[in-house]
Amino acid sequence: METTQITQHYSQQFNADLDQIRGQVVQMGELVATQLQRALDALQSGTPDQAQEVIAQDYQVNAYDVDIDEQCTRILALRHPTASDLRLVLAVIKTTADLERIGDEAKRIARMAARTTSQHSGPNLNNRIEHLGRQVATMLQRALQAFMHLDIEQAIAVAREDERIDREYEGLMRESMTYMMEDPRAIPKLMDIIWSARSLERIGDRCCNICEYILYFVKGKDVRHTSLEKIQQTFAG
Amino acid sequence: METTQITQHYSQQFNADLDQIRGQVVQMGELVATQLQRALDALQSGTPDQAQEVIAQDYQVNAYDVDIDEQCTRILALRHPTASDLRLVLAVIKTTADLERIGDEAKRIARMAARTTSQHSGPNLNNRIEHLGRQVATMLQRALQAFMHLDIEQAIAVAREDERIDREYEGLMRESMTYMMEDPRAIPKLMDIIWSARSLERIGDRCCNICEYILYFVKGKDVRHTSLEKIQQTFAG
Repeated sequence: METTQITQHYSQQFNADLDQIRGQVVQMGELVATQLQRALDALQSGTPDQAQEVIAQDYQVNAYDVDIDEQCTRILALRHPTASDLRLVLAVIKTTADLERIGDEAKRIARMAARTTSQHSGPNLNNRIEHLGRQVATMLQRALQAFMHLDIEQAIAVAREDERIDREYEGLMRESMTYMMEDPRAIPKLMDIIWSARSLERIGDRCCNICEYILYFVKGKDVRHTSLEKIQQTFAG
Repeated sequence: METTQITQHYSQQFNADLDQIRGQVVQMGELVATQLQRALDALQSGTPDQAQEVIAQDYQVNAYDVDIDEQCTRILALRHPTASDLRLVLAVIKTTADLERIGDEAKRIARMAARTTSQHSGPNLNNRIEHLGRQVATMLQRALQAFMHLDIEQAIAVAREDERIDREYEGLMRESMTYMMEDPRAIPKLMDIIWSARSLERIGDRCCNICEYILYFVKGKDVRHTSLEKIQQTFAG
C-alpha cells in the first residue's frame, strides 16, 4: 500500500474504534437506565426479588466501566489522538465514570426497596417519589440521546431540566420533614423516601455532568462550574 | 544540539511538567482539606461568617479543577505519554475530579453550618460529628500524602480506614433516628447532622477512590470494584 492509503486505512480504523467506544458508552447507559427503572419499579411495587436483581446486576455496570476505561487508555497510548478525537476520549472517560455512579445510586435505591417492603405504616409519598423518579429516568434517557447524537441543544435542555428536579426534590424534603414531625413512628419509612429522593437528585446532577462533557466535546469548551445562562449565551447562534 | 541531547532535554522538560502537575494536585488537595476543616470548625463553633467564607472560596477549588484538567489535556495532545506517564496523567484527571467533589461536600457542610447556628434545641450530637469529621479530615490528609509520595502501603491503609468510617457513620445514623423519634421538635437540627454525616461518609469514599488511582498509577492495575482483601493479596510482597 502507498503511504496515503496506509494513512487513510489507519484513520478509518481509528474512526471505527471511536464509534465503537461511543456505542459501548450508549450500551452502558442503557443498562444503567434499566437498572434505575427496575429499582424504581421495585420501590413502587414492593417486590424485594426485583430489588435484589438490580443489586446483583451492578457488577455488569462496573465491568463496562473498567472495560471502556481500558479501551480509552489503549487509544491514548497507541493512537495519540489530538483535537476533537482527544476531547471525545476524555469525554468518554468522564461520562463512563458518571454512568457508573448513577448505577451506584440505582443500587442504593434498590437496597431501600429491598428493605422498605415490610414497612407499611406512615404517610404515602410513593406517588411523589414515582413522579420524581420518572422525571429523572427521562432526563437520563435524554442525556444518553444527546450523547449518541452529539446534540448540543438537547444537552442544554437536559441541563435546564435539572433546575425543576431540584425544586421538586426540595419540596419533597420539606414535606417529608413535616410528616416526620407529625408522626414520628413513620420516621424510618420517611428516611428511606428521603434517601431515595436524594439519590434521584444526585442522578439529575450526574446527567448534567454528562451534558457538560458533550458540550466540551462538540464545542471544545469546558463549561463545568459555569451558569446555565452563561452556557446558553456562549452557544447561542 | 545533537539529537540525543534534544531528546534528553525534551524528556527532562516532560518530567518537570509532570512533577509540576502533581505538585498542583497536592496544592488543590491542601486547599480542599482546609475548606473541609473550616466547614467542620464552623459547624462546631456556630460562626456563620466562617461558613460563608468556605462557600465563597469554593470557586478556587473549581479553578484548580479546570486548570489542572487543561494542563493534562495539553500534555496528552502534545506529548503523547505512554505507560506510566500516561497512567499518571489519567490518575491526575480522576484525582482532581474527586477533590473537586470533596470540595462540594465541604461546601454542603458549610451551608448547613451557616443555617444551623440559630437552632439550639435538640440532642447534642456535635461531639459525634466532630469525631467523624476529624477522622475523615485525617483520611484526606493521608490520601494526599500517599498521592504525593506514591506510597502504596499508605494508600491501602487509607482505603482500609474507610470501613471504620462507614461503621461510625451507620452508628450515628441509627442514633439520630432514635433521637428523632423521641423528640420530633429536634428533627430539623438532626436532619442537618444526618446530611453532614452523609457528606463526611462520601468524602471517605472519595479518599478511597484517590487511593485506588494511586495503586493504578504505581502498579498499572485498575483496582476499582475490587475488594480490599483482593487488593491486599494482589499487592502483597
